[in-house]
Amino acid sequence: MRGVPALTGLQRTERAERELFQELAIPSVSALPEHAADVRRNAEWLAALMDGMDMRTELVSNSGGPHPVVLGEWLGAGPSAPTVTIYGHYDVQPPDPLEEWLSPPFEPSVRDGVVYARGAADSKGQHLPWLQAARDAIAGGGSRVNLRFLIEGEEESGGKSLATLLHERPHGLRTDYVVIADAVFSPNGLPTLVTGLRGLLYAEIDAQGAAVDLHSGLFGGVAPNPFHTLVHLLASMKDREGRITIAGFHDAVEPPSPEELASWERLGDSDREVERVMGAPLEGDPDHPPLHRRWALPALDIHGLPGGFTGSGSKTVIPAHAAAKLSFRLVPNQHPDVVAEQLRAHIQAHGTPGVRLEIRRLGGAVPVRLGTDHPGVPALRAAFQEGFGAEPVLAREGFTIPVTHDFIEALGAHMLVTGFVPWDAAPHSPNEHLPLDFYRRGIATAAAFLRALG
Amino acid sequence: MRGVPALTGLQRTERAERELFQELAIPSVSALPEHAADVRRNAEWLAALMDGMDMRTELVSNSGGPHPVVLGEWLGAGPSAPTVTIYGHYDVQPPDPLEEWLSPPFEPSVRDGVVYARGAADSKGQHLPWLQAARDAIAGGGSRVNLRFLIEGEEESGGKSLATLLHERPHGLRTDYVVIADAVFSPNGLPTLVTGLRGLLYAEIDAQGAAVDLHSGLFGGVAPNPFHTLVHLLASMKDREGRITIAGFHDAVEPPSPEELASWERLGDSDREVERVMGAPLEGDPDHPPLHRRWALPALDIHGLPGGFTGSGSKTVIPAHAAAKLSFRLVPNQHPDVVAEQLRAHIQAHGTPGVRLEIRRLGGAVPVRLGTDHPGVPALRAAFQEGFGAEPVLAREGFTIPVTHDFIEALGAHMLVTGFVPWDAAPHSPNEHLPLDFYRRGIATAAAFLRALG
Repeated sequence: MRGVPALTGLQRTERAERELFQELAIPSVSALPEHAADVRRNAEWLAALMDGMDMRTELVSNSGGPHPVVLGEWLGAGPSAPTVTIYGHYDVQPPDPLEEWLSPPFEPSVRDGVVYARGAADSKGQHLPWLQAARDAIAGGGSRVNLRFLIEGEEESGGKSLATLLHERPHGLRTDYVVIADAVFSPNGLPTLVTGLRGLLYAEIDAQGAAVDLHSGLFGGVAPNPFHTLVHLLASMKDREGRITIAGFHDAVEPPSPEELASWERLGDSDREVERVMGAPLEGDPDHPPLHRRWALPALDIHGLPGGFTGSGSKTVIPAHAAAKLSFRLVPNQHPDVVAEQLRAHIQAHGTPGVRLEIRRLGGAVPVRLGTDHPGVPALRAAFQEGFGAEPVLAREGFTIPVTHDFIEALGAHMLVTGFVPWDAAPHSPNEHLPLDFYRRGIATAAAFLRALG
Repeated sequence: MRGVPALTGLQRTERAERELFQELAIPSVSALPEHAADVRRNAEWLAALMDGMDMRTELVSNSGGPHPVVLGEWLGAGPSAPTVTIYGHYDVQPPDPLEEWLSPPFEPSVRDGVVYARGAADSKGQHLPWLQAARDAIAGGGSRVNLRFLIEGEEESGGKSLATLLHERPHGLRTDYVVIADAVFSPNGLPTLVTGLRGLLYAEIDAQGAAVDLHSGLFGGVAPNPFHTLVHLLASMKDREGRITIAGFHDAVEPPSPEELASWERLGDSDREVERVMGAPLEGDPDHPPLHRRWALPALDIHGLPGGFTGSGSKTVIPAHAAAKLSFRLVPNQHPDVVAEQLRAHIQAHGTPGVRLEIRRLGGAVPVRLGTDHPGVPALRAAFQEGFGAEPVLAREGFTIPVTHDFIEALGAHMLVTGFVPWDAAPHSPNEHLPLDFYRRGIATAAAFLRALG
């Protein structure tokens, strides 16, 4: 940018939105092998963007997974200035069911000031504000903090390339602050600073009954049916009202702190808002309030039950094989390894004689608790006041940002988990979206934060 | 065939096998709309075959369904001779899962004297022996019984064309005997004469939770999950050991008759043979013996649970919608309409607040009991003695031949439900097959039966 006239604010905004639409048009679905080239293209697109900001860039591939980490850094503030590392991910969830999208998921479409596309909220619209702010800071005479971006391509597919990188190069990646740009606003419209993230255990239970598919007329009444076994097994894990009933599962769960409970008072009652977004009444463990169930308590969900006949019409087959895809959201002090063992023991005790059950672990993430006693917190408070006119509330997030735990372990830096996305932006769902006003205010907030730290 | 020299026995056998392979090569899958032209082609192939036997043929289409009934009749024995009607079906089940077939399902392949193809047992290999015997009887100087074939194309897809035809033309289709050529031998290798057939209620339960798919991190713990509701609902219908637990469901079930129980003594213990064919241990209601559970007791099976994410890898979606495909096998004195109401009441009592459950009926068939006190029974006994060297045992069939009930209602004729297929021929499964020896002996048995009645 040096040597050319500075852009006006309007020109900068137009460029920022153009770049957002460019990245959203790349179908970087890391879980689907047929999109491997698109994921790669997204990484190269980001590296080129960072190159244009005078950053040193590198696509880091290692043994942790198939997709590279995009590393970009600008250390021009010098060794005595603080370093801020921004984390994001450029990969996205699969877009299915496609037929429910009002516009194609990888053709960003703006309606009423909102851009609709897969990845708009989760999370291309989260790291791009920080990149825009970084460019302005560097181009406007040099930032007073050193900057590093680590944007991975395996967040949605359980890869470990970034975790591997962090543990291989802890000194080269030394930093004072890590900003995890992947959280959302509260339902009543307040920005958030996250004090805890749920972890994850994702598993598939394979159920093998007969050696071949059988005719239910000939064998109905004597054949093992893997679906029969699975529905009893799954029903035994969580009662009809929503209480998880696996032995020992709740033992490690810690209640929220008094400071957290006090901050949550600012949030008001979000239950009706949650119902509005879901379009359905709340369900879940009646022994705890819904906000605690979303943030501070574990959850168990079934994601799919592949096998048998799923076409239209009727086929009277007793399938030889079926499976269950399920996941646990875990809260601080639980651990996926422990829960995996509890699950294994539960499965062994709840099968049927004719069906062999096997469990395969498809993903895991340790839940984390985050402190708030460091200088990044007041800086972020002031920045949000400038960008959005509101201070962030202490919040938990119900979802998982697996690499947070690796940042803590490998770098030991101050963590700031926050974000510029409204809470009902439909991540992982059809018609994922981001209001462009949030994007513009996010850029202003990121810029204010970098100034405040410098 | 008249005016040309009679074929030798070997030539007749070769022609009979050639015609079997020809019909098996037609992918007449009535449940899949993309095979509609193939189903039609199979009907025309059968009509041409019957034309060549000097039968009057007709493809009967009506309001009952998309596929015609093939009607062929030869009334040359005169009005005072008895009339025998042979029932069969030329449509077949879908062949999936395709990857488990050792040879393509619609390219008949003979290995060790056994032909492998979809439809070999169910039921092209059942009606073709009767057609071969009819041709020989007519060509060899004229049969002493009048012959009628009614071969439908909707048995595997729940169509009603044949039922509609029977109820529209009861006088034109008047007959003394109806042979339902669709039963199988006993596990210990004895031919069977069927005294009861199970009926069917096939239903799909739709479960609608939230309005859109949701992220389990954001909503896990408060979102209704239709799979959660369905596994509890399904587990509440049949306990883990296999007892169906729907209120009132067993009230109408009648135990087998003393005559049936006495005949079943000839069958020996088939449990190990059933386990061998299934390749898995038996499961099911521990309060009744396995043979009773296969033949004389109702059964409930889950066939598929469509919805959510079923691809490889992990996707943390709480699906908005899921469904369950299930069916009940019903026994004499139960009725699908009554069971449908019991199921509806059960579903109303076992839902969860956030999930709307709706039931759609996809098929139904009334179970039937069949008498043995008419002259067709000794004729069939003698015929099996001649063709297979063994007399048939009284047996039940666990499966459903829906049109049997319509034959009884519309024509009031003596019913003979029997067949020329071993019990482990894998109908509805990959690698469905038929030993050619059964096919040849079936032709001899059918011929002997027609001679014995004349």
